[in-house]
Formats: sequence, structure tokens, C-alpha cells
Amino acid sequence: MVALIQNDFSDFNDADEPNLRPYQPDSVGIVVKKFAHFDLPLPLQSGAVLRPFTLAYETYGTLNAERSNAILICHALSGDSHVAGYYTQNPHEAPGWWDEAVGPGKMFDTNRFFVICANVIGGCQGSTGPSSVAPDGKPYGLRFPVVTIADMVHAQRHLMDILGIDRLFAVAGGSMGGMQALQWAVDYPERVNSVLFLASTPRSSAQNIAFNEIGRQAIYADKNWRGGDYYGHTAPAAGLAVARMVGHITYMSEYSLETKFSRRLQTHDQIGYTFAPEFAVESYLQHQGEKFVQRFDANSYLYVTKAIDYFDIGAGHPSMTDALRHVTAKFLVISFSSDWLYTAAQARELVEALPGREVEYEHVTASFGHDSFLVEVETMTHLVGGYLNRL
Amino acid sequence: MVALIQNDFSDFNDADEPNLRPYQPDSVGIVVKKFAHFDLPLPLQSGAVLRPFTLAYETYGTLNAERSNAILICHALSGDSHVAGYYTQNPHEAPGWWDEAVGPGKMFDTNRFFVICANVIGGCQGSTGPSSVAPDGKPYGLRFPVVTIADMVHAQRHLMDILGIDRLFAVAGGSMGGMQALQWAVDYPERVNSVLFLASTPRSSAQNIAFNEIGRQAIYADKNWRGGDYYGHTAPAAGLAVARMVGHITYMSEYSLETKFSRRLQTHDQIGYTFAPEFAVESYLQHQGEKFVQRFDANSYLYVTKAIDYFDIGAGHPSMTDALRHVTAKFLVISFSSDWLYTAAQARELVEALPGREVEYEHVTASFGHDSFLVEVETMTHLVGGYLNRL
Repeated sequence: MVALIQNDFSDFNDADEPNLRPYQPDSVGIVVKKFAHFDLPLPLQSGAVLRPFTLAYETYGTLNAERSNAILICHALSGDSHVAGYYTQNPHEAPGWWDEAVGPGKMFDTNRFFVICANVIGGCQGSTGPSSVAPDGKPYGLRFPVVTIADMVHAQRHLMDILGIDRLFAVAGGSMGGMQALQWAVDYPERVNSVLFLASTPRSSAQNIAFNEIGRQAIYADKNWRGGDYYGHTAPAAGLAVARMVGHITYMSEYSLETKFSRRLQTHDQIGYTFAPEFAVESYLQHQGEKFVQRFDANSYLYVTKAIDYFDIGAGHPSMTDALRHVTAKFLVISFSSDWLYTAAQARELVEALPGREVEYEHVTASFGHDSFLVEVETMTHLVGGYLNRL
Repeated sequence: MVALIQNDFSDFNDADEPNLRPYQPDSVGIVVKKFAHFDLPLPLQSGAVLRPFTLAYETYGTLNAERSNAILICHALSGDSHVAGYYTQNPHEAPGWWDEAVGPGKMFDTNRFFVICANVIGGCQGSTGPSSVAPDGKPYGLRFPVVTIADMVHAQRHLMDILGIDRLFAVAGGSMGGMQALQWAVDYPERVNSVLFLASTPRSSAQNIAFNEIGRQAIYADKNWRGGDYYGHTAPAAGLAVARMVGHITYMSEYSLETKFSRRLQTHDQIGYTFAPEFAVESYLQHQGEKFVQRFDANSYLYVTKAIDYFDIGAGHPSMTDALRHVTAKFLVISFSSDWLYTAAQARELVEALPGREVEYEHVTASFGHDSFLVEVETMTHLVGGYLNRL
């Protein structure tokens, strides 16, 4: 039993207000978030079963008659289905999180491709997660089952089924999105033509786990967390903000922090000898924390980071190469020189575990750390766009 | 008005118990923590004045008749005056934090040198800090004035005065200890023969500040912090533990975390699909956090990290070179290849700001990150011991 519901956000459109955003020929324009409701069991790696479940998703461009031009973009830890475009005509609205990548003539060219992105299960942007209402009518909280990258991908496969897409031209993702793309190629080799694995890793390292665990500990330590049972009460914003700040540092290089902020003071000419934030980098982190808690659920942060920590594509196999033996997809793997979250060595581990396959590996010299995959638009357009054109 | 009080920890010695620790010819053996009480004003960089103040300190070896063989070791963020040896005969007691460096025949050879280490002001191991009782009979809490590295050094200078040491053979320190050593050479050039600047930086970078601010935010977010007014109540242990975990990751390299833990599970064979710590690296971080909150005061963590953030030896000068123009001390500067907290580039910035001075710079290839200065005993003994011999 599957229902597709379109949410056109019509309440955001004011008929009296003209379109105040200048015409952008390379923008996907106004988009709608859609919801696919699945009343079928999703067996999870843990042994638990999730039923029913919903995936929030968006699409850009047009599916061709052969249904052969679909690209699935998988989002990262804090992402959602809203990759590109705008929900409203409000000229102050920010576009989707990878707007520079998806649109007419962009690296994922919507003149050619039908682009799909779904919010992961466990998330908090419309797909079923710990903040969703459980069958008993109360929010799940920590009763929500622990999910894995494979579980996220399994749910996405159901979405592809109802969209009638048997084979994806590409599955693409940066960071946790790359983990999902790789998992797709392992679990559904016949359904994936190519994988774009960007600034990601085939397995979380001890340091990766350590940073995520610190974020979780910060959430647990917040008095408002209440063991995850805070819905209807004050949210554990302070803890989630600290978690976000920890994460945020790992997305930026020392160079980008130094270039952006160095030791600049935010508002004063002189050091104040107080504990109020005074360095610009402190204000920036606070701002990032405050913005994040307005849009993200603390329990989802726990679940999604746990899925990342569990990710090890070689787990349960004699080697990673063995785990990937049924993979038939072509790969584009891109790492960035200043990415110290998911390093070039981690990307190369994947490349080396795919002998005999069509793998292109690009190591990009870039200054902006893990965020480079979002920031280095020109290079990425050249590499990703060029790769998709050659396919 | 200055009083020197010796605390011999005699209550820890049990006369009925034989010495259960095997005789170690290179150990300084049993040492005592001493306290110097100063009833004089310490004018601080902020404009505030601290009076009275106490410094807890320890000494190892013997001051020679010329008073020319004194080496001051300055400790790092979480350190204290207890560099080497033991307080008791209890064979389970851990030695001081740099026991491998200080003793007969060690890199700071107590057969030759008189080694001194004092807990910094703002600290919590016997020197005056936010947990000390203020003149009004109540703990300072956040009423304690914000202190800087220069203020810490100023207090140490008073200690050298009462110990009758006009000129230090060397001032040595790793991490924040290196900052103090450098500050000594700038503020009291006539009193410093040489500086050993180890795994440190002449100014905190934006990334350095960012990590410290996250630790502080974690403490502020703890409901037990109460604006710093928690003495006599439950301490903000959860927040301080998170702060320690953040710090701890920055002390280790990705390699050392991977080598030590990789993805190993702590107690189970299989992933548990729960939020209990299960990876060994998670248990390790928790353990580090729990150990730390038993020995460290959360407010001191705020004050000492703030002093580190404020540290910029070139501040208020046209250039760092200009700030160092009166420095006459010889320098040994050591950086470590895997230290991503205080990088080789940061150490080199100091070296390049000391043109025409006797500066030896050693860049050590080492795997264990910032902690290398404590861990790489053999290399350090060769470099530091050799340098002191050549002086």
C-alpha cells in the first residue's frame, strides 16, 4: 500500500506578490517536497522492522520515456531532500543545499537528467525518524529502531520502485551521501549504472567515530534531552548546538578557518577579558549552532551519526575487495587534499578495493576541507559534469 | 609578604608499609608539593589585580651554589606542578605527568639541574584559581579575573624571586607550556638563558580557538554549571567530560586513534544497534572524560583555555619579529609531523620571527600527534638532553 502525496506549499504563495527573485535561467525554480507513504514492512539490519514509513523527496527535470535518465542524489548528515530551487517566491529564501549543482546546464544537468533526492529514514525533514509519530500515536523518540546506511538505501529502493525506475543512471553523494551511493552499488548492483563517490569513505575510522560520539555525548548531557523523550517539551538545543559546532569544525580546514577568521574580533577592537564570544570564529560557531537547532532534531542527529559510525562496507567479509565482488557499477571517486574528515587515504581504500572495475579517481587540490565538494563548484562541474557526459 | 609552606603529604605515608615500588635509579622518588603564598598585588593584563595569590610548585634536584642550574618547566592545559616522582609509597600511584623526562640521567637530568614546575594561576591544583576562596570567604567562581599567559608567567617570576633564581638556565614547555616559555623570554629577557618550545605555537589559530570554544560551550550547557557558581553543589561533570573528549581528540593523530582502536568493539563481538558506547574508541573517550572530571575544575578549564586563546605573542606589535626584538634567549623549537593541534607551520612562524638569534629547529617525524612530545621519549631525550648538554 503506497500513497504519493504532493505538498505544493501553496500556502506560501501569495498571489498578490510578484516574483521578486530575478529570473535565473540555470535555476530549477520553484519545487515541491513530495511524500511517499509506504504501508509495508522495512526489515532493518538490526532485526527490527519499520512499518509504516514515509520518505520525503523532491525531483528535478523530467524522466525520459525509457526511464533511463534518473540520478539519485543522496544527502549528508545534516541534509534533506531539498537539493535545489526554492519552495516559495520569497526573495529572501535560501535555495536548496546543492543548488549550484542541480539545474539546467549545471553539473547535474536537469535538461538531460531526472534528479531525485529523498530525506533518509531516521532523519527529520519529512521522512520517518525518531520525531515521527509511532503507530501508538506518540512520537518514537528512542523507541525508533537504530538504522544503518543499508537501511536508508533499502527505503530509497522502494521509492525507486514506485517511481518506476529500474536502473539509476547514477547514484551520487558527498560525505554520508557517498556511503549511500556505495551501498546502492553493493546491495542492488543490477540497478546502478554508476556511482559518484565524493569526499566520502568506505568505512568510518576511529577518529570519525570519536567526533560523532562527542556530538552525541553533548546531546545526552543536555538536561532537556530527557532520554530522547523531549517532544512537546523544550528541545535539547544547547547540546545539539555543541554537536553541530564539533561537526562544523571537521567540515572546514585549518586554512579555511584561518582565512575566514584568523584572530579577528567580532565586534570590539580590543580583547574584553570576558567569556562572551569575542573572536569572530566563536561567533560563527555559535551562529552555526543556533541556526542548526532551528532545523534539526537532536534525536535524528543521534540516529544519523550512529548510521555513519556503523558504516563499513567490508564488514562481515574477508576483505573490502570481497565485499565489493558483485559490484558492476562504474565509479567516479573524488577526494580533496584538505579534507581531514574523510581523507584521500580513505577514498583510495575504496579505489583499491575495486580492481578490474571502471573507476576514475580524482584527487583535487582544494583548500576548504571537507566542504570542498560543495564549495569548489567550478572544479566539480568540470569533473562531475564531464564524467556524466562521457558515460 | 611571602610565606613558603611545605606540604609533605605525611598523611599518605604509612610507616607500617614497606616501600612496595621497586627501586628505580632514574626516578626522583617521593616528592612534595609546596605552596608559595604571596600577599602582594599581581596586576593582570585585563587591568584587574589579584591579591593574595598562591602558587603550588614542586622542585627536583638541587640548586647549585651559583643558582645557575635552574630549569623551569611550564605545564600544559590539564597539567599541574607534579611533573615527576610520587607523593606516596603506594605502588599503585601513577607518577607525575612527565616522569619520563625528569630524573637522574633523563632529558632534564636532576643530577645536573634544579627543575621547578608551578601550577598556573587560574588552575585548580593548588595555585589560586576560580575554585579558590576569594577574600570575601566564598569561592571566586566567575568572579575570578580572566588571566593570560603573561599573567601566569608574571606569577611564576615572583616564585623565582623568592627562590632566589635571577636567571633560568632554561624555561621549557610543551603545548601551553611552550607559550609560557616564549612569554618568559619576551617579558624577562635578562632572566632567561634558553627556551625549549615544544609542540607549541606563538599564537592560537582560529581552529585552536574553535576547539577551545566548543569545550567551553559544552561546560556552559551543563545544567550543573550554574554560571560558574557550583562549588558546594554537583559539579558540571558531563559538560567538562565533553570538553575533555574534544580536547583529547586534538591531542591524538588520526593514525594513533586508528592504530589503537580502529573499529574494534569494546565488549561485544557484534554491533548492538543501541546508543550505549560499543566501539573501543567511544569507551576510551568516556574513560578519559570520567577520569578528567575527578581531577579538574570546570571553571579552571574555562580560564585556562581562554588564556590559550588570547595568546598571540605578536599582538599589539607591527609584526611578530618586532614583538620579539628584545629576546636574547637561545631557542630549541621542536614540532611533530602528525601534530595537527599546533602544527609545524605554527612552530616555523616563531622560528622565522627570530632572525639573528641562536635558534635550533627540529621537525620530528612522529605518528602520535600532539602527544608526541610526551610519547616520543627516546627522540626527545636525544634532542632535549643533547641541546641542554651543548648549552
